[in-house]
Amino acid sequence: MSLVEDLVISYRTLAEEGVIDAYGHVSVRSETNPNRYLMARQIAPELVTEDDILEFDLDSNPIDPKGRKFYNERYIHGEIFKARPEIVAVVHNHAPAVVPFSCTTRSPLKPIYHMSAFIGLGVPNWDIREAEKGSDMLVRNPHLGRSLAKKLAKHPAVLMRGHGFCAVGGSIPEAVFRAYYAQLNADLQQRAIALGGRVTYLEDEEARLYDETNRGVMGRPWSLWKAKFAPKE
Amino acid sequence: MSLVEDLVISYRTLAEEGVIDAYGHVSVRSETNPNRYLMARQIAPELVTEDDILEFDLDSNPIDPKGRKFYNERYIHGEIFKARPEIVAVVHNHAPAVVPFSCTTRSPLKPIYHMSAFIGLGVPNWDIREAEKGSDMLVRNPHLGRSLAKKLAKHPAVLMRGHGFCAVGGSIPEAVFRAYYAQLNADLQQRAIALGGRVTYLEDEEARLYDETNRGVMGRPWSLWKAKFAPKE
Amino acid sequence: MSLVEDLVISYRTLAEEGVIDAYGHVSVRSETNPNRYLMARQIAPELVTEDDILEFDLDSNPIDPKGRKFYNERYIHGEIFKARPEIVAVVHNHAPAVVPFSCTTRSPLKPIYHMSAFIGLGVPNWDIREAEKGSDMLVRNPHLGRSLAKKLAKHPAVLMRGHGFCAVGGSIPEAVFRAYYAQLNADLQQRAIALGGRVTYLEDEEARLYDETNRGVMGRPWSLWKAKFAPKE
Amino acid sequence: MSLVEDLVISYRTLAEEGVIDAYGHVSVRSETNPNRYLMARQIAPELVTEDDILEFDLDSNPIDPKGRKFYNERYIHGEIFKARPEIVAVVHNHAPAVVPFSCTTRSPLKPIYHMSAFIGLGVPNWDIREAEKGSDMLVRNPHLGRSLAKKLAKHPAVLMRGHGFCAVGGSIPEAVFRAYYAQLNADLQQRAIALGGRVTYLEDEEARLYDETNRGVMGRPWSLWKAKFAPKE
Repeated sequence: MSLVEDLVISYRTLAEEGVIDAYGHVSVRSETNPNRYLMARQIAPELVTEDDILEFDLDSNPIDPKGRKFYNERYIHGEIFKARPEIVAVVHNHAPAVVPFSCTTRSPLKPIYHMSAFIGLGVPNWDIREAEKGSDMLVRNPHLGRSLAKKLAKHPAVLMRGHGFCAVGGSIPEAVFRAYYAQLNADLQQRAIALGGRVTYLEDEEARLYDETNRGVMGRPWSLWKAKFAPKE
Repeated sequence: MSLVEDLVISYRTLAEEGVIDAYGHVSVRSETNPNRYLMARQIAPELVTEDDILEFDLDSNPIDPKGRKFYNERYIHGEIFKARPEIVAVVHNHAPAVVPFSCTTRSPLKPIYHMSAFIGLGVPNWDIREAEKGSDMLVRNPHLGRSLAKKLAKHPAVLMRGHGFCAVGGSIPEAVFRAYYAQLNADLQQRAIALGGRVTYLEDEEARLYDETNRGVMGRPWSLWKAKFAPKE
Repeated sequence: MSLVEDLVISYRTLAEEGVIDAYGHVSVRSETNPNRYLMARQIAPELVTEDDILEFDLDSNPIDPKGRKFYNERYIHGEIFKARPEIVAVVHNHAPAVVPFSCTTRSPLKPIYHMSAFIGLGVPNWDIREAEKGSDMLVRNPHLGRSLAKKLAKHPAVLMRGHGFCAVGGSIPEAVFRAYYAQLNADLQQRAIALGGRVTYLEDEEARLYDETNRGVMGRPWSLWKAKFAPKE
Repeated sequence: MSLVEDLVISYRTLAEEGVIDAYGHVSVRSETNPNRYLMARQIAPELVTEDDILEFDLDSNPIDPKGRKFYNERYIHGEIFKARPEIVAVVHNHAPAVVPFSCTTRSPLKPIYHMSAFIGLGVPNWDIREAEKGSDMLVRNPHLGRSLAKKLAKHPAVLMRGHGFCAVGGSIPEAVFRAYYAQLNADLQQRAIALGGRVTYLEDEEARLYDETNRGVMGRPWSLWKAKFAPKE
């Protein structure tokens, strides 16, 4: 299965699993040229097909625009690919369970169970006002993309205040897995906080070790998602 | 695609997305006569077809009743169209996530993320007791419709205490978008409040700017909803 | 459409709408003999067909057992039909949103929006320990059924501590409507309480008037449910 | 229907009912050799077919590996079967409603309604740190499996801190029933706590008696699940 096919499946999977609605996007670094990435044209994720995938340079200019419109926020992807050469895939979403953690002064996202251990590697919260006051909240230029990428730094994901989330990974399945399990972690953490009492989160060492283990088992949901959500011919 | 087709899609979309159940309605101002509007006969939204759409004057009298029954609350629509000449579409619903915000003394609906920025333009809370004591809660006459329209004033939406919500827009997609994202905002705001701490809402300028931006991108969910929910021939 | 067909639709509707899972049952008084009622044999609601409907006397003995097994809790239905001659239909369920209101000392179920106005007529909370200590929680004999019916008294519904809910009505659609909107009310009330502040419930007069109005409009969800959930031939 | 068919249905049922996602597994003791058990190879539960079922000894070694990969955590099953000769089936899952109860110092899982009465028999909370510090959270060897089985002791289920849940039973339907109703109980208990006030749980005698009664009625959901989720030929 080609990278383009996997990319199409990632859009559909995140939509079917409720991580994204009509907004949100996934990108993957080109296999043949590390200074380019692939992403869909401006379209709702559930409708993406291979024909909608375009190639961009790391300044987020389309190599061949084919008369299409592009996501306003493609700079999220280009600037992260520039800043993090080892990263292969980026997911941007507005997952409902996650967004509230970007908007409170009191509850940072923390790893509450093993499947979401990567959160223990740190998930900073970016506020667009760090880069621009009085914006329309969108990462619509390289300057804003760079500010976000700087906040992400070496972490596996970053919250965006009043907006959403970005997860990165060494492969499409890893980035999609992280977006999916960030949402579940947020839901579990919300519930645990509501129960009252002190919440026990994963220890740093537990989080670090499971995140390694996970690379060996994250193929399981990916196989399921491919079986369920790959476009039927 | 005609206005009637779009209206049918709006009923089905709001039902499929859980914004309305067997109750709730959408109207659109006539393209040919600004003193008339189109709305379904008394029927559950999921079942609406083009044949169910009737025309009303702004006093909410049907132009040709065709022997049908009408929604008791059609005055919501007629009186808003009278008071707001620039408004093209009105959605009335009882969205579960939204109603609680109409019933508490402490938590007004506020814009918690960019997709719901229009809430930052103000969403007043109308109590039918302002217009009539000891009612059956329904906006069943012009007097009550005018009271609601007056509370709505120049805002994009209005809460109705112990009842529901109305969203208005310059087009069917905009009104439907606002009804859909009001529900999501309510859910996110509820979650953020439960996390404890101080909640950061959108600044007025952020809300105003995104609401403008949104006019350029709200076609994306609308295209998805048309693809998924348009009646199959 | 016959009463038996409506009864089958009520089982399937409550299952499809998440009010009941594999447990729960609906009964209707016979049209030809007010001292008899119809109910399904012991079977999961989603699987009920016309062939599963049996007739019972008001002591909950089957008229013709046809070699079938019966719900242990059929006495709920028989004893309510005895005590309330005007009642035509009874729904018993374990709706997840409702049960918690039967288990706390602090939050009685109250009417939070117009669709659930009937709750304003009073929903008492029955504890089986009022009738029997150290039971297995089931209403498995006439004595327990009578105790429950006595608690219900003239109200439209009754909570059962640590167990579930019963709604009654003058028709199958009314009892099903009440079971459905009790669940929604519980969910909205739970959310409103969590927002903090004082919650505004319907006034007694508002609740009484809307409950009357509702008899004229509750056909709308019923038409939808028939269209969606009637067994296909 | 054979034991293997029932086992396949249990995987699919738990996935369809949201108790497990791409992770989680079910095992059953062999009918012909009590020192062996059956379980799927490493695969997402929704995709399991009869061909994926393998046999293991109680040390969790496959009798005939058939070139397949196995669940890392199969020791959960083997060690419980060793320690509890009367147990026939084991379910391991990460049910979202349940996990938070494993992570707080204040809210043990308690039986809030009759369907979940088995929780009244006791559900201890196992922390992997009791057996190993700085682990990757997985029960990946016999030592960890024995520690978990020891914590489970004579109870019907055990929580796993920051990880999940195990339910055991005298048959596949009983273990699946317990996993399903643990999730519902957790959701109801969470809601009841959020309502404020004192929560009334089942008395010990009520829990004990209903758990006995339940053996006579748990066939009802099982019949439904078989009807809905058995693989179509």
